[in-house]
Amino acid sequence: MVEKKRAVVLVSGGLDSVTALAIAQGQDFDCYALSVDYGQRHRSELDAARRVTDAARVPLKVLPLDLRGIGGSALTDDIEVPETETSGIPVTYVPARNTIMLSLALAYAEVLGADDIFIGVNAVDYSGYPDCRPEFIAAYQQMARLATKAGAEGREMTIHTPLIDLAKAGIIKKGIELGVDYALTVSCYQADEQGKACGVCDSCRIRREGFRAAQVPDPTRYR
Amino acid sequence: MVEKKRAVVLVSGGLDSVTALAIAQGQDFDCYALSVDYGQRHRSELDAARRVTDAARVPLKVLPLDLRGIGGSALTDDIEVPETETSGIPVTYVPARNTIMLSLALAYAEVLGADDIFIGVNAVDYSGYPDCRPEFIAAYQQMARLATKAGAEGREMTIHTPLIDLAKAGIIKKGIELGVDYALTVSCYQADEQGKACGVCDSCRIRREGFRAAQVPDPTRYR
Repeated sequence: MVEKKRAVVLVSGGLDSVTALAIAQGQDFDCYALSVDYGQRHRSELDAARRVTDAARVPLKVLPLDLRGIGGSALTDDIEVPETETSGIPVTYVPARNTIMLSLALAYAEVLGADDIFIGVNAVDYSGYPDCRPEFIAAYQQMARLATKAGAEGREMTIHTPLIDLAKAGIIKKGIELGVDYALTVSCYQADEQGKACGVCDSCRIRREGFRAAQVPDPTRYR
Repeated sequence: MVEKKRAVVLVSGGLDSVTALAIAQGQDFDCYALSVDYGQRHRSELDAARRVTDAARVPLKVLPLDLRGIGGSALTDDIEVPETETSGIPVTYVPARNTIMLSLALAYAEVLGADDIFIGVNAVDYSGYPDCRPEFIAAYQQMARLATKAGAEGREMTIHTPLIDLAKAGIIKKGIELGVDYALTVSCYQADEQGKACGVCDSCRIRREGFRAAQVPDPTRYR
């Protein structure tokens, strides 16, 4: 029996990352999920990460990293989450979030002997986050290839972004094809303890419009 | 009065990072020290970080990040620290350590509005760590310029590595010139609770040889 190649998949419990996980499994990777508990207010995300990885029969590692110490975002500070559309980079931006999450994934990949990392970023609905752009991912991969023992020994780390060119509707269609149960996921920036969504934040709005555009019933539980 | 430019300085409490801090202050930056408590066994390092930043009158932020969850190093796992010289990459290598520390520094820099990060890596005595090489730092800087809100707005992040071409003796001479008190620092991988060094690990050996080569009395407190 040929051993499957291992991959680290960053799983937040949201719609995008669970789709990225399904795609990685569909490409026959032996997946290890990593979730970063960066002191976010929406802890129901972590419960969702547990549900989606259990459903996918994938081990989940949760790394606590309390970013509230350095502040700078409505998601980790005591700033109100905006409920109206904003232009430019939103206050929900967590400083260097994807850089940090990819760095922890890189460490985990190195420990596992994995040369592949999956992250569910997309450049279409990225709400103005600089660290969701393809040029950022390309630069990260270049850096990652120089950063590790594996890289120093000639192996090449690959950062997979299977959703990068998809709009939300396309992501949902892809996930439905792969059998993803989106009822298990939470996207809302201010979901309650039961994981019920507010329906009014940026993330809720993008998600709801995605289901509508994909012509798929929205399984989100709203308050 | 012209406001000084802010810089984030990664400070471990070791000889190199306190020298990097003195150099950043010498270049007239308003310095903010960041120390990552990555679950290292040598907690005396953090006490040293507190002493050196107090002496330099610089605020110190300590971010807890327990890397023991992902394992992979003698510094965070229950593996014995080697006391004889080893070739290649040593088991004391923490996976993706500098990548992770720079990413946290990047987040902090973004919050502070700083465009400069100092890290005390050096390529000469780097003991085979891939993430101490100049090509790694250059790739990291390239990535960092694309990662952040500041970068997206046209500002350029610079990763300063003032020690990169210096051997240990050169670092020590530089620090002495700048008034660094090396008695406050701890380099040992297995220092005791009072910060006393073992004298036999890789790090102790490199440090002792550095003081000898610099012809400076070694202030290290050995057990």
